[in-house]
Amino acid sequence: MLPSEIIERYRIRKGEKFRLDDIDPGDTAGLDIDKAEARELLEAGVKRLSGLQERLYADRRWALLMVLQGIDTAGKDGVIKQVMSGVNPQGCHVTSFKAPSDLDLDHDFLWRTTVALPARGRIGIFNRSYYEETVVVRVHPELLARQRLPEQLVTPDIWKQRFEDINNFELHLVRNGTIPIKFYLHISKKEQLRRLLARIDDPNKRWKFAHGDVEERALWDAHAHAYEETIRHTATPEAPWYVVPADHKWFTRLVVAATLVEHLKSLDLHFPKLSDAEIEALAKARAVLTAPK
Amino acid sequence: MLPSEIIERYRIRKGEKFRLDDIDPGDTAGLDIDKAEARELLEAGVKRLSGLQERLYADRRWALLMVLQGIDTAGKDGVIKQVMSGVNPQGCHVTSFKAPSDLDLDHDFLWRTTVALPARGRIGIFNRSYYEETVVVRVHPELLARQRLPEQLVTPDIWKQRFEDINNFELHLVRNGTIPIKFYLHISKKEQLRRLLARIDDPNKRWKFAHGDVEERALWDAHAHAYEETIRHTATPEAPWYVVPADHKWFTRLVVAATLVEHLKSLDLHFPKLSDAEIEALAKARAVLTAPK
Repeated sequence: MLPSEIIERYRIRKGEKFRLDDIDPGDTAGLDIDKAEARELLEAGVKRLSGLQERLYADRRWALLMVLQGIDTAGKDGVIKQVMSGVNPQGCHVTSFKAPSDLDLDHDFLWRTTVALPARGRIGIFNRSYYEETVVVRVHPELLARQRLPEQLVTPDIWKQRFEDINNFELHLVRNGTIPIKFYLHISKKEQLRRLLARIDDPNKRWKFAHGDVEERALWDAHAHAYEETIRHTATPEAPWYVVPADHKWFTRLVVAATLVEHLKSLDLHFPKLSDAEIEALAKARAVLTAPK
Repeated sequence: MLPSEIIERYRIRKGEKFRLDDIDPGDTAGLDIDKAEARELLEAGVKRLSGLQERLYADRRWALLMVLQGIDTAGKDGVIKQVMSGVNPQGCHVTSFKAPSDLDLDHDFLWRTTVALPARGRIGIFNRSYYEETVVVRVHPELLARQRLPEQLVTPDIWKQRFEDINNFELHLVRNGTIPIKFYLHISKKEQLRRLLARIDDPNKRWKFAHGDVEERALWDAHAHAYEETIRHTATPEAPWYVVPADHKWFTRLVVAATLVEHLKSLDLHFPKLSDAEIEALAKARAVLTAPK
């Protein structure tokens, strides 16, 4: 497992002064290991995570909401696959949020993700989330128009209000036992180019290439600005952001796994304790099952 | 239609100093009319409401969330039946919230009602709502225990936090075009007794009698206190409460109908306007439809 100091390095508890440039997408916290060592470390992390998830499920009081954000190719799908594959899917549910449906648009912007919130004892993974609102929708005003908001509600304050609504929403979740853990996978423009080209060149990756990605890449600065603003306004002590360097996939995955483990460890998870009466009833059940015929 | 002053009389925009005793359950605002006149007035109100609802639906930018609260027998079902029956059910949806399911309890207390929120263009009616949390759950601590909240989250601040979460939630709704209209049907203890006895005596009403109602009646003061606290903390300029006298059913219904009409009138509802191109396309369609064969 990665030491806590490394996780701390990327945790933003108070956004106010945050700048995206503060964190180098190529950073690996000085960790000098080879691929095999990284794989071993990740395996250990996933194993640990899997054990803690079992307790989370049995305990059934807390829920974990893992929010994954990042520009195209930042590695969201890979993180889910590599970090969460060892976890029992009965207690772990992924929801990927693509373009909203008409029914989604006919509700407030937090509605479609709220419907998909994890139940107690579960890890819910949002592959993209309500944070698309303050990034993609902000960068593309035509998407805001699709929401059919009454025009007097679309004021210059709208993004400030949305940040406030998100903060209030997450505080409410925390107060009720659902812990949001928000990851921003931070990739460099250069590394994105490399990955997009790889998608075109590698026959097994071609299906992932979307022509829209090229158009979005042209809006790189606008996206970066929108993410910076979002993290500034929604990194709180209750629901911090983790801005994880994402140019090296092995490192991203180690950080995400370690962060999840640390959060789970901080909860007082335990298998339900039986009362004396229940233990007595179990003894009786054993007697019945093993009685000579 | 009842004049605005009568609606104003029961609207609580700032809860701080509110006392339930400030409003007489037997009040009829000095209105001296007979049953036939009341019926005519209500019919006019329902007709008005129905017309406005059609605009709301066509306009599809706003939604109305009608929250109905009140102690047993206060007349919630009757209000829905008598006031909303003239409205096109395509644009109007009632959800009755009884005891929460296991899935509901495995989520935060706002979840099950959020799932049922009305879409743009609709009137959503909550027959009981998330306000059960700060009334019934508060009066019955064993119901709170069923939520399996982590114990460190159940602090003396919990009700203050829930009021805050509700206020933040409603503010978010308003900012996104869903207008909560919250009615507390205010009945006297004496009138409740009369109605409970009627349920026992009238063969057509017996099915509505629940023995639990008698137990709840014994907790009258606790319920009244919890409602007073709730209204004090959650009556806001954005989402006021309407504390409607409920000893006279005809009066309650007139006030509810007039309040809904007033809210709908305050919105800038209009049938969608067609662009010049769309109007031209319609003219072409007419030409095709009416062309000689």
